[in-house]
Amino acid sequence: MAVYTEVSFEELERLLKQYDIGQPLSFKGIAEGIENSNFYLQTDRGAFILTLYEKRVNPDDLPFFLGLMEHLAERGVHCPLPVKTGDGKSLVSLNGRHAAIVTFLTGISLRRPDAAHCAAAATVMAELHKAQEGFALSRPNALGPKGWRPLAEAIHGADTIEDGLGEMISSSLAELVAAWPGGLPSGVIHADYFPDNVLFVQDQIGGVIDFYFACNDFYIYDLAIMLNSWCFELDGSYNITKGQAVIQAYRAARPLGETEIAALPVLMRGAALRFLLTRTYDWLNQDPNALVRPKDPREYSKKLRFHNKVKHAREYGL
Amino acid sequence: MAVYTEVSFEELERLLKQYDIGQPLSFKGIAEGIENSNFYLQTDRGAFILTLYEKRVNPDDLPFFLGLMEHLAERGVHCPLPVKTGDGKSLVSLNGRHAAIVTFLTGISLRRPDAAHCAAAATVMAELHKAQEGFALSRPNALGPKGWRPLAEAIHGADTIEDGLGEMISSSLAELVAAWPGGLPSGVIHADYFPDNVLFVQDQIGGVIDFYFACNDFYIYDLAIMLNSWCFELDGSYNITKGQAVIQAYRAARPLGETEIAALPVLMRGAALRFLLTRTYDWLNQDPNALVRPKDPREYSKKLRFHNKVKHAREYGL
Repeated sequence: MAVYTEVSFEELERLLKQYDIGQPLSFKGIAEGIENSNFYLQTDRGAFILTLYEKRVNPDDLPFFLGLMEHLAERGVHCPLPVKTGDGKSLVSLNGRHAAIVTFLTGISLRRPDAAHCAAAATVMAELHKAQEGFALSRPNALGPKGWRPLAEAIHGADTIEDGLGEMISSSLAELVAAWPGGLPSGVIHADYFPDNVLFVQDQIGGVIDFYFACNDFYIYDLAIMLNSWCFELDGSYNITKGQAVIQAYRAARPLGETEIAALPVLMRGAALRFLLTRTYDWLNQDPNALVRPKDPREYSKKLRFHNKVKHAREYGL
Repeated sequence: MAVYTEVSFEELERLLKQYDIGQPLSFKGIAEGIENSNFYLQTDRGAFILTLYEKRVNPDDLPFFLGLMEHLAERGVHCPLPVKTGDGKSLVSLNGRHAAIVTFLTGISLRRPDAAHCAAAATVMAELHKAQEGFALSRPNALGPKGWRPLAEAIHGADTIEDGLGEMISSSLAELVAAWPGGLPSGVIHADYFPDNVLFVQDQIGGVIDFYFACNDFYIYDLAIMLNSWCFELDGSYNITKGQAVIQAYRAARPLGETEIAALPVLMRGAALRFLLTRTYDWLNQDPNALVRPKDPREYSKKLRFHNKVKHAREYGL
């Protein structure tokens, strides 16, 4: 939610010489994304986002992220399309950072999507899962079960956030790693499909943004992340009507197998643990130079406690 | 440079019901202005900025700021025009903050304006000084000489920033308050006419923004602020070619009297002291919740040392 690396007009002008996207008319740092510096760029030929990749993004992953957006956009998914330089590159260098220009998508993210919004977003997720087929690159999920233990070990003082949080993390971690399924249908997933990352124009989907957690994993895990982030109310209750809307809309576009359905409760817990871990770590390790406020980890400890009582995927609306 | 108060889409939708500016298509927090929360809003009818006024803005001043922009825009100055609600109000309330929607201006601020840019911006300043005539409201300059002493007294530990800074502040303050002229031509001035606040489209002025320091003071003091912020190079040297460009362009649009010219050296020092004081205070009193990095006060102690050696307005390019 901030601009970490400034870009002057003069630097922008030099950058734009590499592209054929017209003359700059507006250029504003925007408060979007916690990982990178983002700028809204309007030229006489269209609107774009310039992103400077900051330290949390591994440069080796950038061809995957940019290539994926290009692959998806070519297959009809409304997502940012990386713009190429005259030399055919999507990735450039600016002020000591890797950088890219992508097309700007119209639309606004909803803080409180209703069931119809949930259904529309779930349909787009299923389409994304189908459209990614044939994408040549792959990227393991660094925040999947194998990544949880090192992250948990780096967390010190979880109980200062909430009594018993440390114990909750270590016991959930042990159980979930042991119970984690294998062999489910998989491919490239978005892996951060929160309401923030889905733009609406009126009640229609304007597009999906922020592919910087995308990776290869189970499709149903992506759906579990979505159910976690779209279907709980502000008071912490699970809204089964929204859950049903998500699952039905998703299944209508991409059928779910029996093994996927059976795995959903474990994956719901895993998705909650994944966000609990990163939020707890970020809460306890606030960078004084960061220009973003960390998100409350307790939102996800609450969700994890809810999931711990769930016995069957039906309870999520299946 | 941040968003302090979040606005959800649902809150935006409720707000827009009061206006007749169309349906929202895009809405992004923007990293602009150190005092307020700003959002870029695009509707099917145009582009706008929504500002939520944070604690540093006195609500009693808002009718002055908004009324001034309206007055100037009606007289041909390219500045944001406050948009009125169906009830004819420019000032509304949102999430516990005073808020306003103004038109969005195309253009980009330059970090390193050349002499031609300086001249173009100086012409617009002179036009602004003429256009404000007849504006019914007035606002004393809270950051003029009378405001300096309380600000200086609130500064503790200036020497931790730079050896001798505390002494420099107190001696300059005493000298300048004593030497401060009276009776110069005055009216409403912008009072923060930095390159950040002047937008260019190619080499043309797209508009002037950020009127939240505007106040009644000497016109030539506004020009002194501009010379301070536009005519020094990054290495701290004064660029007299730019100084000449500013002064000549300004005079061509609004002649300068002998008393104004004679006062310029003192006003240059005063302008440098004003920014030195606020930057020093902000540097030493960083709000841990602030999402903005304070600007380096030493830029202005350096400028003040330069001014202390100047004997005549000629040395600024007059």
